[in-house]
Amino acid sequence: MLSAEALAGLPEIAPGADLAALIAAHAELRDGDVVVVAHKAVSKAEGRVRRLAEVTPGERARELAAAHGKDPRHVQVVLDETAELLRAERGVLICVTHHGFVCANAGVDASNVAEPETLILLPEDPDGSARRLRARLRELTGAAPAVVVTDSFGRAWRHGQADVAIGIAGLAPLEDWRGRTDSHGRELRATWIALADQVAGAADLARGKDSRQPVVVVRGLERHVLPPDDDGPGAAALVRPASEDLFR
Amino acid sequence: MLSAEALAGLPEIAPGADLAALIAAHAELRDGDVVVVAHKAVSKAEGRVRRLAEVTPGERARELAAAHGKDPRHVQVVLDETAELLRAERGVLICVTHHGFVCANAGVDASNVAEPETLILLPEDPDGSARRLRARLRELTGAAPAVVVTDSFGRAWRHGQADVAIGIAGLAPLEDWRGRTDSHGRELRATWIALADQVAGAADLARGKDSRQPVVVVRGLERHVLPPDDDGPGAAALVRPASEDLFR
Repeated sequence: MLSAEALAGLPEIAPGADLAALIAAHAELRDGDVVVVAHKAVSKAEGRVRRLAEVTPGERARELAAAHGKDPRHVQVVLDETAELLRAERGVLICVTHHGFVCANAGVDASNVAEPETLILLPEDPDGSARRLRARLRELTGAAPAVVVTDSFGRAWRHGQADVAIGIAGLAPLEDWRGRTDSHGRELRATWIALADQVAGAADLARGKDSRQPVVVVRGLERHVLPPDDDGPGAAALVRPASEDLFR
Repeated sequence: MLSAEALAGLPEIAPGADLAALIAAHAELRDGDVVVVAHKAVSKAEGRVRRLAEVTPGERARELAAAHGKDPRHVQVVLDETAELLRAERGVLICVTHHGFVCANAGVDASNVAEPETLILLPEDPDGSARRLRARLRELTGAAPAVVVTDSFGRAWRHGQADVAIGIAGLAPLEDWRGRTDSHGRELRATWIALADQVAGAADLARGKDSRQPVVVVRGLERHVLPPDDDGPGAAALVRPASEDLFR
């Protein structure tokens, strides 16, 4: 049985907030739990925000902004977070971030920010953020749940966004059945399962999108949670390198 | 609280099987439930299989098979299910199916088939399959759960496969927050959520990949389940048309 439940009553996350302490105060965590955190809460706590008033757009940002009907300062922040701009069409900038994630606007986001004119960036090192949260949760609670940091990404060929894992500590990002056989002794086709992305999506189903519920506790995945001293390879293992990518 | 639980004890699905009756016999279904069914069970019940011994490969199938180290009969079946071949590289055929889905091998699959040398196709009309299952479940149980038919698809930029909805009856495929605002009155960024794909992924987490657990009951999504007489637009609404696709 899988379950996912959003934590109620978390306050607005301020820069420097001890996010793990807030989570620990609102949940009875156990070993084998997976704590799924929307990246905005992490980024706010880490101060990964930019004030538009402090941004001076460069020439490329001004050109792209003019072509796509955007604020040039906002575009400059997106470019600052971008390693490669894959597409700029119909008002959408599809970027490869410095982490290697392919997503719209390099994950830069204006929503759910308390102060106006402020943008939220992705954490600088989301796997590191997840590892620090896991370590701090263990320190505070004695339990060693896995931690998954998420964002909502669009998909190439399907409408809508789905939540994916951008940072992971203590959960296997992929479940590898390659070379193993099914109940009839035949090789399995779906053999390399993006476990952590499915966890991210399941967690999103448990929260209200308009409410302040950045944290969801998922249970029933004990078999995939790594021992306390093993954080695993992180969400970096989910990034398909450009050399293997047939679609960029 | 979201929950997902796989049905235990389902028999191997034979051609012509009354899948809804098997599900109804193994679950206590309620209005507001979402019954998630791996497409293989649906395809087997519908007889959507091909025997390799009855396939004569054409010239294109023989060429592709030679170039990618595959069985030419298998490739012929893939081509029969394909509207457009997007990529053929490194042994992988990325296809647009007749339904418009972009996936490897047009969803044609050799695993978990009882008889050797048999391939399982996607249902011909997965939304229709979901609607028939929903209607039959209602007839048998009096409850009108939603039905989601799933497959495991790879993703352009991320490793691993995640389950997605290929057929839907009675569940909103997308949750549309476009134009709505967040708790600070700002427009939301992740505003068009691929709800049914996230449900597919959540359900996959609840089942053992090597076991015969094609059916998972998901609870806690009552607000997204449509009234008994409204099946909604189906998974067709999740397909991004070629005209809007930046990556093919």
